[in-house]
This record gives sequence, C-alpha cells and structure tokens, in this order.
Amino acid sequence: MWPNTKLTKILKTKLPLLQAPMAGNLTSAKLIANVSNAGGLGSLGAGYLQPDAIRNEIKQIRALTDKPFAVNLFIPHAVKTTPRAMQTMVKTLKKVCHPVIENVQAVVPPYAPNFDKQLQVLLDEKISIFSFTFGLPSDKWIKILKQEKIILIGTATTPAEAKLLERKGVDIVVAQGAEAGGHRGVFLDTQNDLLLGSMTLIPQIVDQVSLPVIAAGGIMDARGVAAALALGAAGVAMGTAFLTCPKAITHPNVKKILLSKNPPSTVLTRAFSGHVARGINNKFISAMKMYEQHILPYPIQNSLTRQIRIAATKRGDTDFMSMWSGQGAPLSRGIAADKLVKELDKNVRKLLFKNKE
Amino acid sequence: MWPNTKLTKILKTKLPLLQAPMAGNLTSAKLIANVSNAGGLGSLGAGYLQPDAIRNEIKQIRALTDKPFAVNLFIPHAVKTTPRAMQTMVKTLKKVCHPVIENVQAVVPPYAPNFDKQLQVLLDEKISIFSFTFGLPSDKWIKILKQEKIILIGTATTPAEAKLLERKGVDIVVAQGAEAGGHRGVFLDTQNDLLLGSMTLIPQIVDQVSLPVIAAGGIMDARGVAAALALGAAGVAMGTAFLTCPKAITHPNVKKILLSKNPPSTVLTRAFSGHVARGINNKFISAMKMYEQHILPYPIQNSLTRQIRIAATKRGDTDFMSMWSGQGAPLSRGIAADKLVKELDKNVRKLLFKNKE
Repeated sequence: MWPNTKLTKILKTKLPLLQAPMAGNLTSAKLIANVSNAGGLGSLGAGYLQPDAIRNEIKQIRALTDKPFAVNLFIPHAVKTTPRAMQTMVKTLKKVCHPVIENVQAVVPPYAPNFDKQLQVLLDEKISIFSFTFGLPSDKWIKILKQEKIILIGTATTPAEAKLLERKGVDIVVAQGAEAGGHRGVFLDTQNDLLLGSMTLIPQIVDQVSLPVIAAGGIMDARGVAAALALGAAGVAMGTAFLTCPKAITHPNVKKILLSKNPPSTVLTRAFSGHVARGINNKFISAMKMYEQHILPYPIQNSLTRQIRIAATKRGDTDFMSMWSGQGAPLSRGIAADKLVKELDKNVRKLLFKNKE
Repeated sequence: MWPNTKLTKILKTKLPLLQAPMAGNLTSAKLIANVSNAGGLGSLGAGYLQPDAIRNEIKQIRALTDKPFAVNLFIPHAVKTTPRAMQTMVKTLKKVCHPVIENVQAVVPPYAPNFDKQLQVLLDEKISIFSFTFGLPSDKWIKILKQEKIILIGTATTPAEAKLLERKGVDIVVAQGAEAGGHRGVFLDTQNDLLLGSMTLIPQIVDQVSLPVIAAGGIMDARGVAAALALGAAGVAMGTAFLTCPKAITHPNVKKILLSKNPPSTVLTRAFSGHVARGINNKFISAMKMYEQHILPYPIQNSLTRQIRIAATKRGDTDFMSMWSGQGAPLSRGIAADKLVKELDKNVRKLLFKNKE
C-alpha cells in the first residue's frame, strides 16, 4: 500500500518514486537533491560523463542532500566502424547540419567514457544504488557490486529482458514502456524492438519476475502513478515530468517547447546516438530519415553528432538539438521538483483511497 | 465509482466494460450475447458484412439476449487504384502466397460493402448503440442518427481526433492506445501515426474532452481495467481478451497460438488491408515488408487479399492468415466470455477497494 511498498524498504526512501536518470545536461545536482529531499529517489544520468565529472557531480549532490540517490550508467557493447562509413556519415551531417555548423569532423576512439573507470568511481564514492541501461554489467562486476551491497536496478523493455536481469542477480527491474522519452533500454533483440506499451508491459513483467518492478514510460501525474500501481508495479520512474522543472538544466528553448500548448509530437530516432531514442521531432530527425542505413552504431554516432548538438545548443537552435522527451510531453507543468514529488504523493493518496468514500 | 459510472447510465449496461468489435469472423452472436448477458456490452464488428448479413447477425444476437449491444462499422473514404498498381500487387501476392493459393485474381469495385446501406440496416433494426472506426459519418448521417437517439461511439488515437469527435456530436470516445490489436482507428494524420500508448493517451484525451472515455489497448485483466479507471477512463474495451473465448470463432490454430506459453510477438502491418493494423507476426507479414510501397489503399488491398485469407483459413495455415491481436496476447486465458466479464467485475472491485483494508 502507498507509500510503503517493498521498494521503499530496499531504496530507503519515503516514496516509491524515482526521477529517471537523464544523461546529457538535463538534470542538475540541485534537481536530483530536490527530488531526494522531497522523499523520492533522484538519479544522476552519468552515462556520458568522464570519471572525474561523475565524482564531482556526486560530491555536489551530497553537499545538498543526505538522502539516497542513484547513479545510472550505460552498459558498453563492442562496436566498430570503417573509415569509409565514418566519411559517409560526416558528409551526410555536413549536408544536413550546415545551418548550425560550418564543418563536421570525423571522430576517433574512444567514443565513450571508460565504463570500468566510471564504475570504479561509484565504488570509490560508496554509491548505494546503481542503475543501468542497455543490458547488464559483466558477471565479474555484478559479483563485486553485490559484495559491496550496492542495490542494482536494471532496465527491461520486454519480459525476456526482465527475466535475464533477475537471473543475473539484479535487485529491481525498471519496466520501460514504449511511451518513454530518451534512449530505449532494449538490449536482447534490438533488431526487433517490440515497443510494448506500459499498459501491457508492466503486468507481463510483474507476472514473470519476483523482483519489485518500477514502471517507466508515459507517467506524468498521480493518475499515471495510480495506474502503474494497479498494474502491479511497486513504484514509478518519471523523466519527462522533471525536464521542465526550474532546476532542470534543459535548454530554455526546449523547456518552452515542452511547456507550449501543443508541443510537436515525439518520434523514435537513431540519428543522434545510433541507438533508438524518443524525442520531440525536429528538422535534424526528419532530414536524417533518408540516411537511416548510414547511421553509425552507438556510441560512435553519438560521439560524432556531439559537435552538432553543442553548436545547436550554443545558438539555441532547437532544429538540431536532441529534445529527448516521452509521449507524455503535453502534460508537462514546469513546477519545482520537490513540489512535484509532494503533490504526487498527496494526489496518489487521494486517488487510491477515494473509492471507499 | 465502479461499476456505476456515467458510462453505464448512457449504455444502460451493468458494467462499463465493452467487448471490442472485431470484424472478420472472430466474434459470434453467442459471444456477443454472452458478454451483454453478463453485464458488459457486446459489439458486432460489422465492417466487412453485407447489409443482409448484418441484419441476420443482429437477429441472431437478439434471439440470445434482450440486453444492449453495439454494432460497429468502418467509415468509408474515397480511394482508387490503377490497373498497373493492381497488377503489380497481384504479381507480388502470387509470388509471396504460392504455398496457399494457386492463382491470385485482380479485384474490381465495389471493394467494400455499401456504407449507407449498412447504416440503413442499423436504423431499420433500431440499434441503440452505433460505434465506428476510421473517422466520422457525414454530418447528414450524424443528424439522422441523433434524431433516432442512437448512442454514437467514435474511435480516437490522438487528443485531436477525440476533440473532433466531440465537436461533431459523438456521445462517447474510445481512446485506442498503440497496444491495441486489429485496425488502428487513426484517421486525421495517417501518414504520421503517433502510436500513443494507453498510459499517456487516456489522460490526455480525458483532459481535452468532456465526453466519457473508454480505454482500449493492452487491457487484458482487472489490473488493466483498474489502471484505465485511475487514468480517468469511464470504462474499457477489451478485444484480444475475448479472442480465445470458446464462443469466439477465431480459427482454432490461431487460438492455439494465442494461448501458447510464448506467443510470437505482434507487429503493425498494412499488408492485409491497406490500413495499419496489429497482429501476430507471420510469414505473410514478414514477406510483404519489402513490398510496402506497392500495398494498395484500404479497402482495395483488403478486398484483394481476401482470397488469400480464405485459402489459408481453409488449410488452417497460420502463415498466411491475419491473426489480429494486441500486445497483451501473452495474457490470453481462453475462459468463457461471461465468466471473464464476471471475474473482471469481481477482481476490479477487489483492486479498487483493497486500499482501505
């Protein structure tokens, strides 16, 4: 029963309510601490951060809260490209992105921060909750993390992925529905992404694993939280709902779009990172559609398009920014993170307990 | 509060629970009557039926129940093709479908039953509830239907579609999430189908129209019903959950697949009818993927592939049948329709009222 679920006991939070990790200059130490201080679980999306930057962020968050928070990393997969494929994509990006960037430079390895070094920071800093996306850490790492009694939260987009996470010793499963913004956690069969919606994904995962399930995807208010609980989830993760909070460092022009009366719709795209992700549709995504077959694998494409995102962000040009967002964007409100958490608690109680009145 | 919502008052049913209309030899008069007799609202998916067949079905249902039921029709749109496009698709179907059919014959108009004549049967038979998909009847028809005090149920896949339905005088809106099986009701911007999941579609439509909203898509059990109510729906429509009932006339081989431990996943396809629909993936859908650009518009493609579906059904060959189903297929149970309705009522009550215990 709300809010005391098996989840709050494991997380040591007041509420079974997570601010979903969002990598790439969207959240801030203040936002994360706000959520944790209000009784939820803030999360640092550290996937794109170098080890030193992660350490720095953790220290900043700790200066603002003594409550638990989670750190999220992307699980790496071995990928490569050829000089020819790189040159083709560089040419394509030059053509598509000339309004924001004069030249596009090819990139070389490493295409992403070193995962082992990132994870070592989490151990050094004695992080209590580690969440991850795109699969699982190696068995060796899982053993070490469990020895250190670190709570492991994995991300699943299908019952099969959830079962694998459970078998590998993960403590909590996030069931990420197709409504969710940002990167899809799909990792077992990325070629045939089933795009299961939350309404059907949550009960199917709840039936097939015995771990607590956190629902993610399309949840924007107390109605969504109550629905997720009805479907059997032990708690929820909300990302898009926090993107427009004052302490989110989402670009002001993107906040404006999210908070407009009829924000443009979201689409799934591989154009920014090489891995499928949901964001507000814009010129870049539309233009890249016809070059789909040339998109480089994640994280190579991500490394290559960073220069474009930086240039677009500097100019405030939303045509070429990655505006990650879930299908719930039109329900964005722009209120403070701690207020949002407290309101959710109050309104979920109202919804759950109204039926006997 | 369950089960007395504004919806049951309008529908004159005990429960705000619809058996979704499913065109094409899936439901039966017995199934529809079973649902209505148990307190739900059975629906006849009459879109593909000739006027005389509709009249006959209505009489059969009425012989089995004196409770309300709905009749559903597909709204027609003017479409055409060229002899050349027809021949290209005939050739393609010959190549793809040779295992079940020796020859594929081109088809000529009319490609679908006459809508005005179908609707006239509903008026003649004094049907009390008329639901429809793919848009709206003409203003002239709406006026006549409203004069006859026929309850109108429209289908929306976006808030914009729901608002249009309300503006045109529809009484109830079905919010069809991307999880739903069979044809998607999308009609305003079919080129950019947003595929909004139920978790986010329901609250957005509830916020934007003042009509009662029926949630459809991914709802398979009491958890889904309770979730839909939490999101603000006044009731639910369930299709896939009824496909495996003993009185459903779904092909036995399809029932077997739906009730198997791990049914193959569903996909969206235009290959069978020309309009996007969700069904269990099979050889036909996979093979037709590379001919996507040659698929004829609905209902021409539907008329053309009928001979293939008939041949496949005769042989019981599920590789070439249309196995319409929602993403909730793995939660199929195969119990009787009236038992399913009664169990849902009991279990929804348990879920809604457990919180104070």
